[in-house]
Amino acid sequence: MKNFTYYAPTRIFFGKGEYKRVGEIVRSYGFRKVLLHYGGGSIKRSGLFDEVTGSLRDAGIAYVDFGGAQPNPTLEHATEGMKICVKENVDLVLAVGGGSAIDSAKHIAVGAKNDCDTWRFAMKEDTPKGALPVATILTIAASGSEMSASAVISNEKLGLKRGYNSDYHRALFSILSPELTFTLPPYQTACGVTDIMMHTLERYLTRPGEAAVTDRVAEGLLRTVIEAGRAALKDPCDYEARANLMWAGSLSHNDLTGLGRDFFMISHQFEHEISGMFPEVAHGAGLAVVFPAWAKHVYKRHAARFARLAEVLWDIREGSDEEKALAGIRAFEAYFREIGMPTRMRELGIGEEAFRPMAEKCTANGTKILSAIEDYDTDKIVEVFRLADAAD
Amino acid sequence: MKNFTYYAPTRIFFGKGEYKRVGEIVRSYGFRKVLLHYGGGSIKRSGLFDEVTGSLRDAGIAYVDFGGAQPNPTLEHATEGMKICVKENVDLVLAVGGGSAIDSAKHIAVGAKNDCDTWRFAMKEDTPKGALPVATILTIAASGSEMSASAVISNEKLGLKRGYNSDYHRALFSILSPELTFTLPPYQTACGVTDIMMHTLERYLTRPGEAAVTDRVAEGLLRTVIEAGRAALKDPCDYEARANLMWAGSLSHNDLTGLGRDFFMISHQFEHEISGMFPEVAHGAGLAVVFPAWAKHVYKRHAARFARLAEVLWDIREGSDEEKALAGIRAFEAYFREIGMPTRMRELGIGEEAFRPMAEKCTANGTKILSAIEDYDTDKIVEVFRLADAAD
Repeated sequence: MKNFTYYAPTRIFFGKGEYKRVGEIVRSYGFRKVLLHYGGGSIKRSGLFDEVTGSLRDAGIAYVDFGGAQPNPTLEHATEGMKICVKENVDLVLAVGGGSAIDSAKHIAVGAKNDCDTWRFAMKEDTPKGALPVATILTIAASGSEMSASAVISNEKLGLKRGYNSDYHRALFSILSPELTFTLPPYQTACGVTDIMMHTLERYLTRPGEAAVTDRVAEGLLRTVIEAGRAALKDPCDYEARANLMWAGSLSHNDLTGLGRDFFMISHQFEHEISGMFPEVAHGAGLAVVFPAWAKHVYKRHAARFARLAEVLWDIREGSDEEKALAGIRAFEAYFREIGMPTRMRELGIGEEAFRPMAEKCTANGTKILSAIEDYDTDKIVEVFRLADAAD
Repeated sequence: MKNFTYYAPTRIFFGKGEYKRVGEIVRSYGFRKVLLHYGGGSIKRSGLFDEVTGSLRDAGIAYVDFGGAQPNPTLEHATEGMKICVKENVDLVLAVGGGSAIDSAKHIAVGAKNDCDTWRFAMKEDTPKGALPVATILTIAASGSEMSASAVISNEKLGLKRGYNSDYHRALFSILSPELTFTLPPYQTACGVTDIMMHTLERYLTRPGEAAVTDRVAEGLLRTVIEAGRAALKDPCDYEARANLMWAGSLSHNDLTGLGRDFFMISHQFEHEISGMFPEVAHGAGLAVVFPAWAKHVYKRHAARFARLAEVLWDIREGSDEEKALAGIRAFEAYFREIGMPTRMRELGIGEEAFRPMAEKCTANGTKILSAIEDYDTDKIVEVFRLADAAD
């Protein structure tokens, strides 16, 4: 077990009806004025917006209505939000939505207290010196952003999408009411399931090293998500399934599933370039295409680890480690297809001609090596993308 | 999944050599003066005391040396500590030790900011209105106190031992260096393993209800602890084994393993009266005696749950649920004996004549019912204690 630091201070209010208490919760912390941040019109159509603002008003909490967070939230839009926070003397940024609204809110919260070019934080050229507190009401189980230190933001001008971690990104509190996800369409539910699984898989499939507690927790979460994902697609109003997805989603990205290991979220890095260049590609869908390809490219050199995963998740017990490993990867592909995810580049409408440009974005035109379970240069990444286009 | 709140804000510094950084860590929070609280002479004999105080001094942190925390820490001793904190203008209570020193430190930290009879908190007649921050350097994997909201304190005058939870008990940071546990004698290692297992088992064996994420995490932790316990007893300097015990110990009592369920730590309640009346009984040893008896008393009415546990932990797959359940309980007994724990009252030197007085303490002379997986009155508790004395 490698040395680690663990810090996941977000207070979680979990369960049916908890979001209706947002006003009293905000007031209990002593806040007076929130920036209410969200994406498009869905929270207005569903009535959630009215419930949240009603609760805030009842508790005497003022709010500034700032919607419009994009599915891949942009620096440009977040920068507007930062200015509003400062002008309106906001003391809490409250995100209502999924990872997009929450990541946008985190970047706004940071920018409101750092009078500089905040893209430098995303490029890891500088670190924030403070931030407004952030809180969330989660409406989709996917990103884990409600409890994570990460925020992903896109620079529209440069066509780049970058994530950065900061303790300032840790939500002060997050309200997780599973019933808010009942109306999530199947495709988005499936994208969320994939993202949640990848948050654990990227931390699990690393260079060799011992971390038994972490492994067992990771395996348990993966098994739960696989079952809950099926159940939620079968019956969107299955409360237990939605609840398990929601809570597993939080635990899969708050660092718990990687402690004691060094890891690098390589499939996520690849996927950022895919949806950086093709913004219509949903994050989960991109991951479902990239992960099996990455896995096929690497498993022979780490067969024991992949074989163990195949046993634990898919009950694959026959054959050599290599055979079990490959059968396990095919089981992932089958599961992704079962839940309606694509597993090939062509399904995303991405052709061979995009592979090298995307790979070059990953490696900053060959100036960087991505160091994960192995080291990846541009050529190797192109090989992975080609496997994501192969017939089998 | 029942509604829940989860708040585990302790920053964990985990790993080899981390405790040597305590001075710089304390300073990074801006503290100036700590109450250095610990038990007996072992941390002096081992050299840890000198390393900790040296690190504090190097970082310019003043400290007040206040040792003497008892294995079952007392209100009386903690009250001395509270007065010192106030007199010396301490701004952080730093516990170095196991659950005893940490629980004592937590009660000191609360009392330093609550000028009243602090036993009222332990009796749940009042709640603290503030506290000094607490930090810990853990030297034994057992109590989970390094990350929990709980503190157990004994009132010597009344012969009562009571635990109470408070957010003020959550350590600000805890330093977990597994190598500090290498020299722990086998009996104490085994007591710790039992305590850690019980923290999860008491949250798992509850009235029926769904909580799949929690169940899978709980099962994973239990399996890890069972293996790591064996390994640590085989080789006390097995770093991975000690690391897994230490981190599983923290995760087993920071609430994670009970979320979504209602639970009541019934074996712990029984054990508090046992070691309340017989202070020489180690907490883990008392639990190893009480748990199998409690389980045998109740399993037929909750056979499916006990059977599942038997399958997952002990690979017991043959027979009816009742048969698997009982076989699983016997497997727990066998494991406790394997690691050197007692499993019968007579091994603790406790005779039949003490059963009713201890049971009456549990129910405050029959004025309380303990509501766990079932309701327990005095007579029922006496039945459980008798099972803990039965031949089989």
